[in-house]
Amino acid sequence: MIQEDDQQHKPDQGMKFSSMKSLDSVLLTDLYQLTMLQGYYEQGMDKTAVFEFFVRDLPSERGFLLTAGLEQVLQYLENLHFTAEERDYLKSTGRFSAGFIDSLAVLRFTGDVHAMAEGSVFFPNEPILRITAPLPQAQLVESRVINLLHYQTLVASKAARCVLAAPGKLLVDFGMRRSHGGEAGLLAARAAYLAGFDGSSTVLADPAFGVPGYGTMAHSFVQVHDLEAAAFEHFAHAQPDNVVLLIDTYDTEAAAQKVVELAPRLAQQGINVKAVRLDSGDLFDHARQVRAILDAGGLQQTRLFCSGNLDEHQLRAFVEKGVPMDGFGVGTLMDTSADAPYLDCAYKLQEYAGIARRKRSEGKGTWPGRKQVYRRYDDNGVMATDIVTLEDDVQAGRALLRPVMQAGKRMQPLPSLAESREHAQRELQTLPAPLRKFQEFHYGVEISAALKQLAHEVDMQPH
Amino acid sequence: MIQEDDQQHKPDQGMKFSSMKSLDSVLLTDLYQLTMLQGYYEQGMDKTAVFEFFVRDLPSERGFLLTAGLEQVLQYLENLHFTAEERDYLKSTGRFSAGFIDSLAVLRFTGDVHAMAEGSVFFPNEPILRITAPLPQAQLVESRVINLLHYQTLVASKAARCVLAAPGKLLVDFGMRRSHGGEAGLLAARAAYLAGFDGSSTVLADPAFGVPGYGTMAHSFVQVHDLEAAAFEHFAHAQPDNVVLLIDTYDTEAAAQKVVELAPRLAQQGINVKAVRLDSGDLFDHARQVRAILDAGGLQQTRLFCSGNLDEHQLRAFVEKGVPMDGFGVGTLMDTSADAPYLDCAYKLQEYAGIARRKRSEGKGTWPGRKQVYRRYDDNGVMATDIVTLEDDVQAGRALLRPVMQAGKRMQPLPSLAESREHAQRELQTLPAPLRKFQEFHYGVEISAALKQLAHEVDMQPH
Repeated sequence: MIQEDDQQHKPDQGMKFSSMKSLDSVLLTDLYQLTMLQGYYEQGMDKTAVFEFFVRDLPSERGFLLTAGLEQVLQYLENLHFTAEERDYLKSTGRFSAGFIDSLAVLRFTGDVHAMAEGSVFFPNEPILRITAPLPQAQLVESRVINLLHYQTLVASKAARCVLAAPGKLLVDFGMRRSHGGEAGLLAARAAYLAGFDGSSTVLADPAFGVPGYGTMAHSFVQVHDLEAAAFEHFAHAQPDNVVLLIDTYDTEAAAQKVVELAPRLAQQGINVKAVRLDSGDLFDHARQVRAILDAGGLQQTRLFCSGNLDEHQLRAFVEKGVPMDGFGVGTLMDTSADAPYLDCAYKLQEYAGIARRKRSEGKGTWPGRKQVYRRYDDNGVMATDIVTLEDDVQAGRALLRPVMQAGKRMQPLPSLAESREHAQRELQTLPAPLRKFQEFHYGVEISAALKQLAHEVDMQPH
Repeated sequence: MIQEDDQQHKPDQGMKFSSMKSLDSVLLTDLYQLTMLQGYYEQGMDKTAVFEFFVRDLPSERGFLLTAGLEQVLQYLENLHFTAEERDYLKSTGRFSAGFIDSLAVLRFTGDVHAMAEGSVFFPNEPILRITAPLPQAQLVESRVINLLHYQTLVASKAARCVLAAPGKLLVDFGMRRSHGGEAGLLAARAAYLAGFDGSSTVLADPAFGVPGYGTMAHSFVQVHDLEAAAFEHFAHAQPDNVVLLIDTYDTEAAAQKVVELAPRLAQQGINVKAVRLDSGDLFDHARQVRAILDAGGLQQTRLFCSGNLDEHQLRAFVEKGVPMDGFGVGTLMDTSADAPYLDCAYKLQEYAGIARRKRSEGKGTWPGRKQVYRRYDDNGVMATDIVTLEDDVQAGRALLRPVMQAGKRMQPLPSLAESREHAQRELQTLPAPLRKFQEFHYGVEISAALKQLAHEVDMQPH
């Protein structure tokens, strides 16, 4: 830092090195990881380090969080290596010693990972991932591990609120276009599905993760036709099994009437209008009017699907008012987690060479040591309280952190995404009622006596 | 939509198809693009369509926006194609006809692109990109074009405010870890640099884009040493040309004193402490105290670098109060554009088969036709007013949209990132003073008489 690279004007022609073309490159990290690794190398510091990922505080708009992204973290750790090109690049920067760069050729992730299952509810100060590995490995992975866990957890936590707000409604992720880059769009589809969405409009999310695809038409399809009714008819013939017509391009109710007029002709050809979509204006009002027009026209089976700047609060309002909507496309506000676009999360050193460590920076202090979280339930199976303690301080309750990787290898395959999705639904059902209703509620997370004692002992050490 | 894919539990093992492994896959799009393309195919609708990308309204926290992402859009268009694997996947979904899927084998982008130069200031209703191409091509690219332009523009616009707030200070992007996915982290580094930042902590942004790298140490480096002073000394030996020490792990002022005590010993070995970094607590207060300690200890040349939840408002406050900070790391709040995490942007059909088109959806109406934006300046070279009009309605002022791609080929290389960065600095210098100061100010964007007349004529058409 405060070290400029040479400032010549480099061409902006995309990646110059083939092994750095993808986000899988180990160089998708912060430079300080590498400068620190150089320091560790010079000092021969490669004893076992323990880092944990946790959230310090909840955003004011969230009462709980849902874990997501573990699968991508494990893939990242399994793939961790420096290609020859990447090492050549590092050499070219002049920042690192030849010996250090050579040592990177054999660097792989050989550590252990403990984690909460994807789709688990969690709260501040609870580690959801622990990495135990030789210091350089555990350090190097910090930036991308945070990047992968943070975003999917952010979106899954937002999506879970939509699921709670609109039980029984079809929920589809529509947010790729305004998500922050392509990876966000793709991973948002996964995170939303994990949290209970039915699918996503993002095509690639199906071959990538098995997230069911949903899609209809855009306004442009209507606009390129001189007559809206012709657009509807053409679309019905092109997608006879999936006729969902967007009816708000010009005049919503007039378009609904056109659908009614078109439907008998389509029916003669065996084509049903499965649904209409509303995307603008007062959705409350339009939905009622459109439902009435469709019903009066004999299209009681045609469903209503709505989109346009929706979030959990809108969904809840629709449901509470009994507006006759059957499904919702939720996009930008979920995929950017717009009301809480980041989490105050960290990946922090807890132990090195067998000695517990703690950062005491003002407002950013951490609890030292290898930790476990126990969750206790009331007689109705509702979450009652969590306790965060040291790994070897066994408590009553369900232990949430489990070993998932040992010596760099998965101990067994993680649950499938569909299985994690089912786990998430069970988790949401055990939430205290106020959290299910987005009411002010502070869930109790207790710090154990053993953990407080260790923190005190660590603080007594001179630095 | 409302069309579930088969719901069997697919394994969540990452991409199954090699050509779909990367975000370059054409399937990183919305499913409705493909269902619409099937409709266009059935109807033989492949005449020239014109789409424009624009922002409808500014977030309340922004007085202007800065364009970014054009280079990535052109790369995407140049690469547009369906691999055999991707076509096989589409076939496997059962949603599309064989003839349509076969037609995708030869689909390439053969259209024209007009755009504002990257690093240009722009306002609502001003197209920053226009695509003129056969309808299926122009339609298909919508989702990813929005995705690429939206995010970089979002970050460049936020970063530009930081640059305006802290003139002459070193500004470094620190945000990768909490950006939304890896592509966001990488592109945020590019967008921030374009807007005037000095560099980024993201290593890959240098080989990818020539963004200078910056990096120091994390708290963990201090914590793995029993003594903070030993950590400082080890880091100085490992990075002798770039000694920047993080001093807030335990007690900031005590650490500053340790730096003073260490400095003479390092100086004997020819090593200077280039800077110290503060990352927590009351940065105002700590910076003054640390500056005094360093100065009293003879380290007047050692610079102060600060990070920790910074944005343009913090930077401005520091600068206005004359706090002795030399540089800033700006991270999460910029890379997520936290106070305005998305733009109300759209990519909308303006013309098809030579006829202007307009969507009239409530609150989402658009101006029809192929447009140009002219900017007029006052005698001091400050932006005075913009006028949005039809392409063939030549007006006084500087035309902001220029042709950059013709028949699918770049007309010439775009400016380098460094050149675009210089352009952005010139643009920021021509902003009206209230916009430079984040004051309430509504910059005048006039809709021309010709454009209003065309909109009126389009509205007269029956639909």
